[in-house]
Amino acid sequence: MTLTPSPRPALVADRAARLLAHLADAPFDAVVALSTANVDYATGYRSMSGAVHGTSSVAAVVTGDRTVLAGPVADSAPAFDAGIGEDDFVAFGRFYFESAGSAATATRLVDEHPGAAEAIAAAVARAGAASAILGIDEAACPAPLRAALAAALPDVTWVDASAWLAGVRARKLPGEVALLARSARLAEAGIVAALAAAAPGVTEAELARVVARTMVDGGGLPKFTVVTTGPRSALADAVATDRPLAAGDLLRFDVGCLLDGYWSDIGRTAVIGAATALQAQRYDAILDGLDAQLAAARPGVPAAALFDLAVDVTERGGLAPYRRQHCGHGIGLDVYEAPIVRPGEDVPLEEGMTFCFATPYYVLGWGGMMVEDALVVSADGVRPLTMLARGLTEVPA
Amino acid sequence: MTLTPSPRPALVADRAARLLAHLADAPFDAVVALSTANVDYATGYRSMSGAVHGTSSVAAVVTGDRTVLAGPVADSAPAFDAGIGEDDFVAFGRFYFESAGSAATATRLVDEHPGAAEAIAAAVARAGAASAILGIDEAACPAPLRAALAAALPDVTWVDASAWLAGVRARKLPGEVALLARSARLAEAGIVAALAAAAPGVTEAELARVVARTMVDGGGLPKFTVVTTGPRSALADAVATDRPLAAGDLLRFDVGCLLDGYWSDIGRTAVIGAATALQAQRYDAILDGLDAQLAAARPGVPAAALFDLAVDVTERGGLAPYRRQHCGHGIGLDVYEAPIVRPGEDVPLEEGMTFCFATPYYVLGWGGMMVEDALVVSADGVRPLTMLARGLTEVPA
Repeated sequence: MTLTPSPRPALVADRAARLLAHLADAPFDAVVALSTANVDYATGYRSMSGAVHGTSSVAAVVTGDRTVLAGPVADSAPAFDAGIGEDDFVAFGRFYFESAGSAATATRLVDEHPGAAEAIAAAVARAGAASAILGIDEAACPAPLRAALAAALPDVTWVDASAWLAGVRARKLPGEVALLARSARLAEAGIVAALAAAAPGVTEAELARVVARTMVDGGGLPKFTVVTTGPRSALADAVATDRPLAAGDLLRFDVGCLLDGYWSDIGRTAVIGAATALQAQRYDAILDGLDAQLAAARPGVPAAALFDLAVDVTERGGLAPYRRQHCGHGIGLDVYEAPIVRPGEDVPLEEGMTFCFATPYYVLGWGGMMVEDALVVSADGVRPLTMLARGLTEVPA
Repeated sequence: MTLTPSPRPALVADRAARLLAHLADAPFDAVVALSTANVDYATGYRSMSGAVHGTSSVAAVVTGDRTVLAGPVADSAPAFDAGIGEDDFVAFGRFYFESAGSAATATRLVDEHPGAAEAIAAAVARAGAASAILGIDEAACPAPLRAALAAALPDVTWVDASAWLAGVRARKLPGEVALLARSARLAEAGIVAALAAAAPGVTEAELARVVARTMVDGGGLPKFTVVTTGPRSALADAVATDRPLAAGDLLRFDVGCLLDGYWSDIGRTAVIGAATALQAQRYDAILDGLDAQLAAARPGVPAAALFDLAVDVTERGGLAPYRRQHCGHGIGLDVYEAPIVRPGEDVPLEEGMTFCFATPYYVLGWGGMMVEDALVVSADGVRPLTMLARGLTEVPA
């Protein structure tokens, strides 16, 4: 029953230090982070309320000297509890905390500012950056908020910092790699448990439940449990149904969870009974494509070159044309992070980057198959974050 | 191991029929639905890919005669599998499905349109509404998409339909109430299981895991598992930590899951050992406030009147001033739906509306407590969707 204690506190400090180190060389004086992942990276604060409602309304203003959060009053007390200083939170909106003591800042924050734009502007001023060049996470900034910020901070020069923030986060710290490995292993443990439960008559939804339970038991929050069978295995991302497994079916998993903020995204394919020659041949081709990526990936190799290699090797394995839009993606506090392994993505791999590589193949009317694995780029290659073998599993029919 | 089969297929048809019935009286000819909940309501299609990435990029164009979806190519095959006609999906972007047969529309949809705006405009044209008065789900429409739609459909007259769509969804169909009840009961089953596991030394994170596992075992997807203890119980929505329970602690649950698209949001409070006089007195006051709402709620009563009543009764119970921004909210395909039980919300309750009522109380430095329950408005009152008693539970220390 005891969970492994979270390594987050040390990690939060390490991430903030890395962000500040990058900021010293940035083409702006300070940065306004808005996405859930960027705010977490910069401050360690994750809004439970934001996660429930699916919106990110907490922002972090980071200068070389100070980090100030702006967010709803409801986030103030949880943020202080997470280690944010009471002078480092600017609130907006209405929510009531009472107080048994005298020091509870959160009780006086009600209606401090009417909305997010006013609170962010005040946070920028508090951080001393109201006439600075500010990087802003444009990709996570709704248009009305962006316009309101421009109006509220007329002396600021704005620079889009979304790609810059993605670049800061791309090379992972050791504590991040450890969490990504634990998250990936929960996903693969879910697949292993579901494969043990798989049999003719068992449904997709039942197997998805086994995957989710395994993730939860290890401390993860299930985020997607794509379990598709038979012809449905060709549907790529689809909700599991009550379709029962039958002999001869393909069984395709694409599953992931969140562990302390870090994602997993792992794929495997099985067949119920013995694989047909066509199933085996197609699987071998996509596995060859994946293996070629894994063998070639190392610092300095452009992401696009890995894509070309995966497509080429898969096609030489007999699956031609092999048409894909990408064969992998970075993973971390977001499930898809830069770099993406796709045409035109010329950014070279660097040590410490973490990826999921995959070569899925979907044939409507026949079925779909994939192997997807997580890895970290090492000094001279890659180190897998998973332990499961990559072959086509045959489930006893 | 067998899950109860989903009642979704019949429900999907019933919801679409209700939407069409309302559309006949709407101040527009057709409606463009954009939020995940509105698209699900109108069509029964839920994008797994959209759920993973946290963005809704599928839109539904609904006229009196026809419903056409616009979405990424990757959603096309799953949508057809979910019952959407092949002529009723307009695609954008690049994703590759191959095909073993001849009829697979999805294989020819690659790059049909470059982006969402072009696809939605084409869907509007296909539905014959390119020169109509169109309602649009403005609240779920990013500003760049909104501008692009205006440019792409110059002959359309646009009307904000967000509140109208919320109104259509407010009174639930019997199948919706059944799913909301199952979702609520999974949440309360999670609380019951966690209370059984609670004891001095057990941590918040361990109890959150028990809640999540119980939801998963019943077929739900855990969405929030707020388990806060001792002084942390005052933090409202906060992430569970490794803090161990101690004798005298308050233990506050605020938990919810998704079941077939329908949310739950249930709250309970316990104390480790015997409640102190202050704990018991404050709890009695907030429970009185909740009970007063439950007793007074019936068709015709304005939501704001319930708010006033809850605050008044809680204060007369000795908790004055009792400051709150709301004392409840509608629940359905979204966790917060109209009407909200708050000042100024003059909309009267109607039979079939579903709510969560709550009177939380948060005192920084002391603790927090709440009871939150789900209910459906009946002809002459309310019917609870939960079974759990509402008292302050004492956990053996």
